[in-house]
Amino acid sequence: MNNLAIGMFDSGVGGLTVLNEVRQILPQESIYYLADTARIPYGEKSREAIIRYSIENVRFLIEKGIKLLIVACNTASAHALSVLQAMFDIPIVGVIESGAEKAVRITKNKRIAVLGTRGTISSGIYQKEICERLDGAKVIALACPLLVPLIEEKLFSHAATKMIVQEYLSSLKEQQIDTLLLGCTHYPLLTPLFREELGEGVSIVDSASTCAETVLTTLQKMQLQVSQNAIPKYCYFVSDDPHKFQALGRELLGFPIEDVLSVDYTSDKSEVYEYR
Amino acid sequence: MNNLAIGMFDSGVGGLTVLNEVRQILPQESIYYLADTARIPYGEKSREAIIRYSIENVRFLIEKGIKLLIVACNTASAHALSVLQAMFDIPIVGVIESGAEKAVRITKNKRIAVLGTRGTISSGIYQKEICERLDGAKVIALACPLLVPLIEEKLFSHAATKMIVQEYLSSLKEQQIDTLLLGCTHYPLLTPLFREELGEGVSIVDSASTCAETVLTTLQKMQLQVSQNAIPKYCYFVSDDPHKFQALGRELLGFPIEDVLSVDYTSDKSEVYEYR
Repeated sequence: MNNLAIGMFDSGVGGLTVLNEVRQILPQESIYYLADTARIPYGEKSREAIIRYSIENVRFLIEKGIKLLIVACNTASAHALSVLQAMFDIPIVGVIESGAEKAVRITKNKRIAVLGTRGTISSGIYQKEICERLDGAKVIALACPLLVPLIEEKLFSHAATKMIVQEYLSSLKEQQIDTLLLGCTHYPLLTPLFREELGEGVSIVDSASTCAETVLTTLQKMQLQVSQNAIPKYCYFVSDDPHKFQALGRELLGFPIEDVLSVDYTSDKSEVYEYR
Repeated sequence: MNNLAIGMFDSGVGGLTVLNEVRQILPQESIYYLADTARIPYGEKSREAIIRYSIENVRFLIEKGIKLLIVACNTASAHALSVLQAMFDIPIVGVIESGAEKAVRITKNKRIAVLGTRGTISSGIYQKEICERLDGAKVIALACPLLVPLIEEKLFSHAATKMIVQEYLSSLKEQQIDTLLLGCTHYPLLTPLFREELGEGVSIVDSASTCAETVLTTLQKMQLQVSQNAIPKYCYFVSDDPHKFQALGRELLGFPIEDVLSVDYTSDKSEVYEYR
């Protein structure tokens, strides 16, 4: 059991920011990363669709053999975490609690802004998680649906991205926030633009590192750490074309992504193969 | 048979531009429109995924009862049309041949640019369809992956959209094209921006009206026209949340969309319903 991998899923490459943090503090653990690129993006889809996709993703990873699961996608954490925790026996960690905890720890004036996809923001989960942890917190939640497409096109510092970021953040400027919580695993890649727009007075928080700490303590508490002499193994599974994932992942995160397997668990594929 | 509906599918609202043309020239025909919003967008996904989704879409519509099918999505037409035509018995019309035909008819200097999603452009189908119809044609094909997200956010004349359109089209300006073919059913909504950028000397062609003409002649040839006294019925099926489709469709196309049904044919749903 202890030598099984940690499983994680996201709709695409965004969750690699979480993987990166996990492998830094748990360098001996093996990781299976599943990117559901056949159904990307999750951010604009309904709660029902996200729950259905998440269940299929977890089933797939459990069949591969994992001891703990990270839902490395904010939208899936927002809609499906509690359903998954009730359905499956392994420990399951999301990214939202971690992010909320960190934001609450950092803020001084209790005014926190959260950016996310439409699905994450409309779920109201960040608002709830923050207010439960911090009396008198004021949370400004903002859906930023264009940021993921712009990031996937690698336009991190393009004038159009800047203009759209400015527009999204303009409403925050009068709110005197001191903390900006990035409620989407893609968004850390735009941190320089957020910084430029909001200035040094605002702390920018992402959930990746806190999530990794939660994974560490969960493994310790449940005595699920890998044995000392284990050799870590990273496998990447994608539900659509692996090449785009591999190229984009490498470019976005600056480390090579090997062992990428294309897997089809998302629908009945029997009639498709003959057309390849 | 003749009183069955015309079926059409797209990944989202884009194909409504085609529906609009069809209902103008065939006002008595009933139409079933399926929007596969659970898996939108198609434009960046692999050929295999698009073929799989398209087969599921057609099966769903055939079960509902249709006499002719329109693949009202360029990416699906590019990857799946021939597969669908080989698999199913009803007449199936795509949007690509229509668009290519129209562009070839209009161009005078044989220099045609095509805009589309990454999937459509990389399939090479427009290049092939145009060159087969016009000796010596020069086709410049350009993938514009950000246009659909911008249109879905209704930023039709936003400065950021303008900037991105300018950047996409900048490479065309030296190519002396006289015809711009819109190879995505969303793109007609940006026609004013394309016009502004390229000037009056370039004809802008979309495939919706030609596709509707093809449907008309196919129905006539096969004697499948609806009986004179039939009352047309429009039904919309969406594989995810119907509200967004309804609101966006109405806003994009300016006509009310009623009778929208949410249907789940995209995966095993048995375990999801209890969480609604």
